[in-house]
Amino acid sequence: MSQASFQGVLAPVLTPFRPDYEINSEAFLTHCRWLLDQGADGLAVFGTTSEANSLGLDERVDLLDYLIDNGITPDRLMPGTGTCALTDTVRLTRHAVDHGCGGVLVLPPFYYKGVSDDGLYASYAEIIERVGSDALKLYLYHIPPIAQVGISLDLIGRLLATYPDTIAGLKDSSGDWKNTLAILNEYPELATFCGSERFLLDTLRNGGAGTITASGNVNPAGIKKVYDNWEGAEAESLQAGITKLRVCFEGRPLLSALKAIAADFYSDSNWSIMRPPLRALENDDARAIVKELAEMGFRMGDTDRNA
Amino acid sequence: MSQASFQGVLAPVLTPFRPDYEINSEAFLTHCRWLLDQGADGLAVFGTTSEANSLGLDERVDLLDYLIDNGITPDRLMPGTGTCALTDTVRLTRHAVDHGCGGVLVLPPFYYKGVSDDGLYASYAEIIERVGSDALKLYLYHIPPIAQVGISLDLIGRLLATYPDTIAGLKDSSGDWKNTLAILNEYPELATFCGSERFLLDTLRNGGAGTITASGNVNPAGIKKVYDNWEGAEAESLQAGITKLRVCFEGRPLLSALKAIAADFYSDSNWSIMRPPLRALENDDARAIVKELAEMGFRMGDTDRNA
Repeated sequence: MSQASFQGVLAPVLTPFRPDYEINSEAFLTHCRWLLDQGADGLAVFGTTSEANSLGLDERVDLLDYLIDNGITPDRLMPGTGTCALTDTVRLTRHAVDHGCGGVLVLPPFYYKGVSDDGLYASYAEIIERVGSDALKLYLYHIPPIAQVGISLDLIGRLLATYPDTIAGLKDSSGDWKNTLAILNEYPELATFCGSERFLLDTLRNGGAGTITASGNVNPAGIKKVYDNWEGAEAESLQAGITKLRVCFEGRPLLSALKAIAADFYSDSNWSIMRPPLRALENDDARAIVKELAEMGFRMGDTDRNA
Repeated sequence: MSQASFQGVLAPVLTPFRPDYEINSEAFLTHCRWLLDQGADGLAVFGTTSEANSLGLDERVDLLDYLIDNGITPDRLMPGTGTCALTDTVRLTRHAVDHGCGGVLVLPPFYYKGVSDDGLYASYAEIIERVGSDALKLYLYHIPPIAQVGISLDLIGRLLATYPDTIAGLKDSSGDWKNTLAILNEYPELATFCGSERFLLDTLRNGGAGTITASGNVNPAGIKKVYDNWEGAEAESLQAGITKLRVCFEGRPLLSALKAIAADFYSDSNWSIMRPPLRALENDDARAIVKELAEMGFRMGDTDRNA
């Protein structure tokens, strides 16, 4: 894991839109800066939470250029670059590597279902060979509840054996702690991130690298405090606090709920807009979650209270 | 259905690759011409069978340009243009419309699962509004076994009500005849295509437009004969013949099997190559299916025997 380019708490950054569903780049940049100010160790832009799969290729390229042109340090960026199509994934991955991004988070090709490990191995191998750069640090993205196509323990091992200097880590969004633990035990050289902060303390205690988590968009400081204190006496109670919040988010459509919270924080109702096919919460539901969280003592950006 | 731009038998054209997984455009053009010569009523290029979801955006644009530059009549083309991302789908759809393609076959955005009909309605509406052309003839693509995200009866009705001149038809690849029949009964104005020729006669008898079927790549003339004779005395036995063949194809990984048959027909072993994550059949399996079909009296391109 000493070779890994990231550890700690990363946020898959929410992507704000304008009423015409175009990306609001300025608001995105503001949010990226806020996350880093709050202690996020990295920005996993263009993740599932970012609605990245609803963004076009050119939009992703332009938005990454924009962030870097405006001073976001590339080594803090782990853009999602995995698409259904080999050539598109290569294009996005090469673009990120050319910018000096610290890593890329790569979904398996996810349109065709029931594909073999041989086919997925060939996919990742072809991406790596075509990009052909020692600077490529590839993080595997395992999220079977959404992508349906997952990354097996065996596939991880095969890829690590062939590309030990390129396969840097993995994000496990299976929601299955047994799977995360198996990866941690079998591949300690991999920087393994849990996909929900519910598992952060357990991940760290078993040698993991941290978490890349949707709710890192609204509670980065609180989650970071668990990371910073995982060996301390307060670790369990800090973990209990962030788990309680996460459960509250999960009671709603998670992405829409997070955007509703951001809209409240930034005092910008447009922040709640989601690009089709996803939908914003109804106003009443948005107000309800902000109120419920406030009653739990949580307010986005209120670091002293949350962390 | 009189407004529909297509009817009959369409093939979702297989895409041949070179050993380095690049598209073999010349071989693709040859196959397109062969299909039309064999009586295919249209070419649904860039379908699921075409491995289109493994093709990059630029590759799809370039390949459509190439076909049309080389004399394939645009009004015979129904390219697949649906991707996960609104802006990419708009780009591909606009490109097809600008070329005068007879229609486009549009998957719903398929990354995010469990999305609402409201969200899917907004997706299709936004595509139609952004393309903004009376020339757009949009065919909805319902293939829940692979895309997971499907198109409900209610969604079809809502889209037809708002865009009666644009929503031209639908391909039902659910494999569920009850669903196809419900669409045929509820929306007779829609040009409904079954996604497998197993249902061709039933589709036609219930007012449907025809079939867009993977095996149309290897048996277009045989399937066309059912279409041409569906009201004749031989209809049932012709249907039984193409059903028997289809069942044989389905005993294998369908796409790989079809490419193995094409490799034999074109005497070009590279025709069997599939782009990752899909995989070619092993040589023994490829030989076995060609042999088994020959024993059933089928040989690709042997129109007299097959049809």
